[in-house]
Amino acid sequence: MPEETAPSLEQLEDLVEDDRYAQAQAMVATAHPSDAADALQALEPDEIARILETQDKRHVADVLEELPDDIAAATLVRMSATDAAEVVTELLSDEEADILAEVPEEHREAIILALDEGQRTLARELLSYDEDSAGGLMQKEFVALSLRARAGEAIAGLQARADEIASYPAAYLYVVDGQGVLKGILNLRALLFSQPETSVLSIMTKNPVSVNVATPSQDLLKIFRRHRYLALPVVDDDGVLRGVVTKDDALQFESEEIEEEFLRFSGIAGGEEVRDMPTWLRTRRRLIWLAVKMALNVAVGGVIAHFSDTLREVIALAALLPIISDMGGSAGGQAIAVSIRELSLGRIKVEDALWVSAKELGVGLLNGLILGGLIAAGAFVWQHNLVLSGVVGVALLANTILAVCLGGVLPLVLQKLRVDPAAASGPFLTMTTDVCGFALVLWLAGRFVEYLK
Amino acid sequence: MPEETAPSLEQLEDLVEDDRYAQAQAMVATAHPSDAADALQALEPDEIARILETQDKRHVADVLEELPDDIAAATLVRMSATDAAEVVTELLSDEEADILAEVPEEHREAIILALDEGQRTLARELLSYDEDSAGGLMQKEFVALSLRARAGEAIAGLQARADEIASYPAAYLYVVDGQGVLKGILNLRALLFSQPETSVLSIMTKNPVSVNVATPSQDLLKIFRRHRYLALPVVDDDGVLRGVVTKDDALQFESEEIEEEFLRFSGIAGGEEVRDMPTWLRTRRRLIWLAVKMALNVAVGGVIAHFSDTLREVIALAALLPIISDMGGSAGGQAIAVSIRELSLGRIKVEDALWVSAKELGVGLLNGLILGGLIAAGAFVWQHNLVLSGVVGVALLANTILAVCLGGVLPLVLQKLRVDPAAASGPFLTMTTDVCGFALVLWLAGRFVEYLK
Repeated sequence: MPEETAPSLEQLEDLVEDDRYAQAQAMVATAHPSDAADALQALEPDEIARILETQDKRHVADVLEELPDDIAAATLVRMSATDAAEVVTELLSDEEADILAEVPEEHREAIILALDEGQRTLARELLSYDEDSAGGLMQKEFVALSLRARAGEAIAGLQARADEIASYPAAYLYVVDGQGVLKGILNLRALLFSQPETSVLSIMTKNPVSVNVATPSQDLLKIFRRHRYLALPVVDDDGVLRGVVTKDDALQFESEEIEEEFLRFSGIAGGEEVRDMPTWLRTRRRLIWLAVKMALNVAVGGVIAHFSDTLREVIALAALLPIISDMGGSAGGQAIAVSIRELSLGRIKVEDALWVSAKELGVGLLNGLILGGLIAAGAFVWQHNLVLSGVVGVALLANTILAVCLGGVLPLVLQKLRVDPAAASGPFLTMTTDVCGFALVLWLAGRFVEYLK
Repeated sequence: MPEETAPSLEQLEDLVEDDRYAQAQAMVATAHPSDAADALQALEPDEIARILETQDKRHVADVLEELPDDIAAATLVRMSATDAAEVVTELLSDEEADILAEVPEEHREAIILALDEGQRTLARELLSYDEDSAGGLMQKEFVALSLRARAGEAIAGLQARADEIASYPAAYLYVVDGQGVLKGILNLRALLFSQPETSVLSIMTKNPVSVNVATPSQDLLKIFRRHRYLALPVVDDDGVLRGVVTKDDALQFESEEIEEEFLRFSGIAGGEEVRDMPTWLRTRRRLIWLAVKMALNVAVGGVIAHFSDTLREVIALAALLPIISDMGGSAGGQAIAVSIRELSLGRIKVEDALWVSAKELGVGLLNGLILGGLIAAGAFVWQHNLVLSGVVGVALLANTILAVCLGGVLPLVLQKLRVDPAAASGPFLTMTTDVCGFALVLWLAGRFVEYLK
């Protein structure tokens, strides 16, 4: 098992602190790109840029591809436009689009202008696609054959470009007409088994399955799951072959999406954090979400303040309130998670909100009855007061039902409003269930206060 | 874009309710396996088994491969051992292992005994591997050539088996000696460009990169990310070629793992739920985790009950307590999420617990100071009491630091104790931060109670 170990890279941060850049540069220059990227993540973008400025542009590109896109972009911004353009030229086309998309507009324009003409057109094309569409995921590295080619020429052409082609992902060759319109797909094996004078036209698969540059990644994954293609050609609205998207690319994109979603769901802005990142960067990314939650919590505090007389009179409620609030948040969180998953898989849309809440209602009712019964029983054992038991039991039941229905629907509505459902659903849900749960318990308690004292 | 629509499948649940099984069976028999699986998920395992019992075993296998493993296993259990064995024979080897692993032992033994001898040995071998190891992920479908073969024979052999081989994932051929020990890898292209009398030995790549059956999926992914292999041969301790694991398989396994982790993190037992599943099944899976949370919450309630005199005297605290508790849970949840991600990626181990808490300490200190300052300021504006501000500010600071350090370390410790970190970290964290947060505020308030009234 090949495993390039690079113990010395662990000292990179110390070298930079001691201003020993020459040593840091020498170390990164000889490291495997992914090891180098791992170590560089601990540094600030100017430090990364300073280490990379002396390196071979191809190696810099390999390293940037392994860094989170926003850090790679921040590093590019700190290079001269000419240097950055040279690095961009070496990036794989799908990474190029992702990284350039994170570069602030004025810097991006300067880098693009420094590219040579072919690369400039390519960069503008790549940037025109949505990140999570076939156009954003595709690679521009593929082999296109002319419709009029013969097998012998095609094989000779392939052999001449063998080194370059060896790094291409595709097991297929694509056949296009004079306008670049996709006309067929050719299996490498079929080509190799043919006589040299056979025309490509006669051995290709006609009317090949292709996807449009705008096809969303969700749909791509469905096609790859359903059929056993390893790669699909990507065409524009005129049928012109624009690139190739592989199953690997689509799968890798999906797992990165879920990872980021998981972190955004837990309140990490941007969906990317590793502990090697600088402390202040990590602090800021976490703080944004915490500050929003704190602001929402003011409403929760307000409800309790409003009912503080009741609470003072029936102080036992203070011990039961956190249980009701936590159960609402937890039950609602389960429903949110299922909806976020089903949204990402394309199983539900905003129009399904009613169906989703109907499906949640049953679960909420059953769990609310069971858990409400438990808390009521527990409260009775503790305080020997049936009215108190009833108040907390009913409040927990009602709050659980509200929480699961709201939790199920919230991600759909937020998605529709173009607010990130992963990051926003949780805070909004807990605020609502806390406000409603507390208000319900304390209002009910206020109505029956003479039986509760 | 090919997309088999199957609107009628939506009525499957109604057909079963009306006991119209013949129609349900006819519908499933002609549906695409993934559409069929989508519709069948809404039913109970006996109903699924009854619909599938009349169908072609190959189709049944295709459908079971698309169902969640536990539902596929429950369906197998409800078939006769002979029928189940016929279905198992048709399953892809990697799916076979996953599904059989979910079948209860006594049923599994009966099914395995009903297999023919070759399949029985295969099943026992597959079951001997860990689900998340190369052995558990590999496919048994690959082409092995003898070390002594010549290119011409090898090509003729491939052409004779072309149909079968077309469905194999690998772009490589494997060369083994008389004992089955892996000796080389042959690129299909290299083989096809050779003269018929060339020996396979002379054109193969010797000392090929391979992984052991026990290699964990994390390490597999690292190798696939770092190098550009599409598939790797899997060997046992004697070097005998046991199967082939593709990059696709490893990536797909990873995205399923993260999806399940995300759902388990949100309290869905088993990590699988779609809203089409029966309500009572969904209720039970969610209830388990909610019940545990509720039990833990009793400790939180206990703390408040213990300090209820202080709370009654300084009732303003009741409005501030939920804010302190929620901030602790949220800040700790961020640290948990980052640790769970870094654990899955193999970036941290239990030995790193000290380093992790040091890394969290900085973030907790900064965010605790900022948020503690905010709540102190807010409390002062509200109550004009500097001591009260100080108590809640200090409590929030201390609780945030505790929460992030504990949140960072908890997943590592739970993993070490073989408790699922995704499911267990959250409840344990919120219980601890609530207990500590409430106790700290109320204890401090008790000490300064004369300045707070």
